[in-house]
Amino acid sequence: MPVYVVGHKSPDTDSICAAIAYAELKKKLGVDAVPARLGELNAETDFVLKKFGIPVPELMTDATGKKLIIVDHSETTQAPDNFDKAEVVEIVDHHKIGDITTPNPIFFLAMPVGCTCTIIKKLYDYFGIEIPKEIAGIMLSAILSDTVMFKSVTTTDEDKERAKELAKIAGIEDIEAYAMEMFKAKSDIAGKTPRDLIFRDFKDYVMSGKKVGVGQIEIVDLSLLADIKDSIYEEMKKVKEEAQRHSVFLMLTDIMKEATELLVVTDEPAVVEKAFGIPLKEKSVWLEKVMSRKKQVVPPLEKAFAEI
Amino acid sequence: MPVYVVGHKSPDTDSICAAIAYAELKKKLGVDAVPARLGELNAETDFVLKKFGIPVPELMTDATGKKLIIVDHSETTQAPDNFDKAEVVEIVDHHKIGDITTPNPIFFLAMPVGCTCTIIKKLYDYFGIEIPKEIAGIMLSAILSDTVMFKSVTTTDEDKERAKELAKIAGIEDIEAYAMEMFKAKSDIAGKTPRDLIFRDFKDYVMSGKKVGVGQIEIVDLSLLADIKDSIYEEMKKVKEEAQRHSVFLMLTDIMKEATELLVVTDEPAVVEKAFGIPLKEKSVWLEKVMSRKKQVVPPLEKAFAEI
Repeated sequence: MPVYVVGHKSPDTDSICAAIAYAELKKKLGVDAVPARLGELNAETDFVLKKFGIPVPELMTDATGKKLIIVDHSETTQAPDNFDKAEVVEIVDHHKIGDITTPNPIFFLAMPVGCTCTIIKKLYDYFGIEIPKEIAGIMLSAILSDTVMFKSVTTTDEDKERAKELAKIAGIEDIEAYAMEMFKAKSDIAGKTPRDLIFRDFKDYVMSGKKVGVGQIEIVDLSLLADIKDSIYEEMKKVKEEAQRHSVFLMLTDIMKEATELLVVTDEPAVVEKAFGIPLKEKSVWLEKVMSRKKQVVPPLEKAFAEI
Repeated sequence: MPVYVVGHKSPDTDSICAAIAYAELKKKLGVDAVPARLGELNAETDFVLKKFGIPVPELMTDATGKKLIIVDHSETTQAPDNFDKAEVVEIVDHHKIGDITTPNPIFFLAMPVGCTCTIIKKLYDYFGIEIPKEIAGIMLSAILSDTVMFKSVTTTDEDKERAKELAKIAGIEDIEAYAMEMFKAKSDIAGKTPRDLIFRDFKDYVMSGKKVGVGQIEIVDLSLLADIKDSIYEEMKKVKEEAQRHSVFLMLTDIMKEATELLVVTDEPAVVEKAFGIPLKEKSVWLEKVMSRKKQVVPPLEKAFAEI
């Protein structure tokens, strides 16, 4: 029976590429490892795998009886269905320590860096295993994606250094130009409905007892959304009503400007000024230097909801 | 504010020596790290620190407001008091993954080896930091203690190899002779009452709703206990009655013979044959190759209690 290497649900580029890259390392170390995914590829990841000619990992719908290596999280809520009937044999991650426990000792490596693939690069080096060119390409892509080309507040020197080394192996001379190419693929909104875009990367939270949805669209240039911003806003009202949400926030994050336009539909507009110090006048507020939902939007919102 | 490096409650030699050795490594890496302990030293650890001239770490009675590096476990129940009011900044361990979670990403390294100090040796090597002679001595001692001189079923090749390297640095030519010296210190029963000996390393479990105590005394030669075995057995009866235990088991583990005499006081003698395949005739059963409470005594007892 193989060991399945798998990232989190609603997979992003790091969850997919870390699974592929770590499965490759384990194979080189003599383990029968197979990468898997817990959902459909997003447009960015699809671009990345095609770019480097890497096949899409198989879809895992049920973990029952399987051996798992978990990458890019350590949370039972983000793990595959029937996770409790599987055996976790390793964890490699760069997030906060989650609630996965094991009945036996295993290898668990978490590091406070911007991307799981940064850690996997270090593990390749530690074991003295050469990284195939195309694997280096997808690992570089994951780092550029997770750190938003080193602009995210989660970026560390480790990410930058390992990315440079990976670019060299992958034969990518201009990292910025490649990142832009990737972000353009990610920003592709052709044929997408407002609803598709809202739910591209959407999470529900409970803040002081209220159901609050926060979505994010990252795009190289916000002007690309100008024509459909009003339709998105109208659709957000429906998203709010249909699931009895108290508020729906949608981050329109401009990767190049390093800022976010936060679209807001809420029963309590005062929460916006409380959270970000800027009063909500029309449909949105402009947040300079804000790019991370996890670090820069959800915590101030939680605090504001608790105080209001 | 320094970072405190601390092992588990009821500290054993690995919990104390790993805290000291890892604090030393962190200091060499520029971190203001201080080793701490959560309880009194046992006789073995006391011998080890004196042998290598290492001061006893300070006692931590309250973790409130402190920064912690946790070694040798990842369980909230084994962590210091007011652990929830402390900040965990790292974890290094060799046990199963426990229930400690963090609000932020941290360094967490667990490996399935016999001793935390085996992992710490690898971290010294990874960072290219020289290990001081006396620190190598206590790290070797921790490995010999946790693996019972490489006889425990938890022992890996990593433990053996790293121990050899540490012995060389510590200037210990005959590892076996040193281990015997340490185990004799651990086996020292001079001046100890039967009650002291029963509670030297005693844990209560709930097995199928019944309170069951399981203690262990590790000793180089069981004949050292011959004169007081009857008094220990009489005291075990009191230990059973005073806390409404269903059973009290005491492992008298002969380190050299690699076997355990299991003393038993119970309301249900049949549980012994059910668990170990040997009927309880008098006060005890002899269990060949059994040395680990965690791996070889508690699991079969739990299974037997569930079935009886």
